[in-house]
Amino acid sequence: MVDKAVVLLSGGLDSATTLYIARKKFRCFCLIFDYGQRHKKEIEQAKKIAKLSGSKYRVIKIDLPLKSSSLINKKLAIGRNSQSIPQTYVPGRNTIFLSIALSLAEDMGAKAIFIGANALDFSGYPDCRPEYYRAFKRLVRLATRAGVKGGEIKIFTPLINLTKAQIIKKGLRLGVPYALTWSCYRGGKRPCGKCDSCFYRAKGFRQAGIKDPLLCRQK
Amino acid sequence: MVDKAVVLLSGGLDSATTLYIARKKFRCFCLIFDYGQRHKKEIEQAKKIAKLSGSKYRVIKIDLPLKSSSLINKKLAIGRNSQSIPQTYVPGRNTIFLSIALSLAEDMGAKAIFIGANALDFSGYPDCRPEYYRAFKRLVRLATRAGVKGGEIKIFTPLINLTKAQIIKKGLRLGVPYALTWSCYRGGKRPCGKCDSCFYRAKGFRQAGIKDPLLCRQK
Repeated sequence: MVDKAVVLLSGGLDSATTLYIARKKFRCFCLIFDYGQRHKKEIEQAKKIAKLSGSKYRVIKIDLPLKSSSLINKKLAIGRNSQSIPQTYVPGRNTIFLSIALSLAEDMGAKAIFIGANALDFSGYPDCRPEYYRAFKRLVRLATRAGVKGGEIKIFTPLINLTKAQIIKKGLRLGVPYALTWSCYRGGKRPCGKCDSCFYRAKGFRQAGIKDPLLCRQK
Repeated sequence: MVDKAVVLLSGGLDSATTLYIARKKFRCFCLIFDYGQRHKKEIEQAKKIAKLSGSKYRVIKIDLPLKSSSLINKKLAIGRNSQSIPQTYVPGRNTIFLSIALSLAEDMGAKAIFIGANALDFSGYPDCRPEYYRAFKRLVRLATRAGVKGGEIKIFTPLINLTKAQIIKKGLRLGVPYALTWSCYRGGKRPCGKCDSCFYRAKGFRQAGIKDPLLCRQK
């Protein structure tokens, strides 16, 4: 029987690619988070991607009353940031997502958790760096019943050292439906083309020498 | 100005004592979690305790669809367990609570997080052991903007090596309103007196040589 894996699916390019990598070896259960993000559109896209991939999914709602992040607090501007860690940073986000994934993984007997974190073409978020994931893996061994009994839930970050162009090329080989993925932080009808997330996406497709199917579709 | 701390407050004996320890040095913001637990009564008690201590609080609702824990899944019996890790175990619970506390602490500029975990008179949950907290502290340094900039959010576990009797004696000196605390997993009108949580509470008061004010009040 194929082992189960919990996959964190935001609806963006990276997590969709991660799901298609995970499903080669695991039966995937996708976790989609509704944490009050501005770009709620990504939730609808994530559901479509999960369905298309043949995976089960669940939308988990978390009440996260943060004032400092422009992804949640609409009074703050998204902008593009030259700061090392921009205002779109959601404190503790990946730690929260991973801890809920850990809880569900242990509950359903899944052997793995997949997250599409990426430390190259990214916005400098601390919880996207390899050293953060090393520390989380250590925590997992101590946090779980499985860990106490000598078993383990493995954390996979298959994109951690890839550029956006490499991710896209890999994803195209796996059939990732990029036209369904949503990256823009603003969550309007069309991608704004100006936020950090749009910037890295455009750079990735340009460097991969491929037209972004999301933009093609919308013309 | 006094620094802020985020305190995880369940409404039980340990977390109430922890709040009263934390408020000696910090301005406390209490996080109370509604995660679908059977004993919702603890939430109401936690609110009363927070108010009485003069602290702000917020109830955070999390959708946690776990089947394996008898604290959430009403089809399972609470019982008393001789197993090393009983069925009341909620996978990943403290990791989820701490990660949300971390997120809010960073957002509000708090310097500390307090949790009333206890590794002596406890039910053997893996996320109550000192080694788990060492790993979490390490993670915090890597997970946050503050950590990247050289600052730190400190994690305090002031009860980790105390017996229940020691906790109660300490709390009484600090004026903890134990009559308001709720421990019973069943969450009925009165404590069941039979679950693990009632067992450890009764043991603690007995060993401290004090009558449990919750039981006195209810007669």
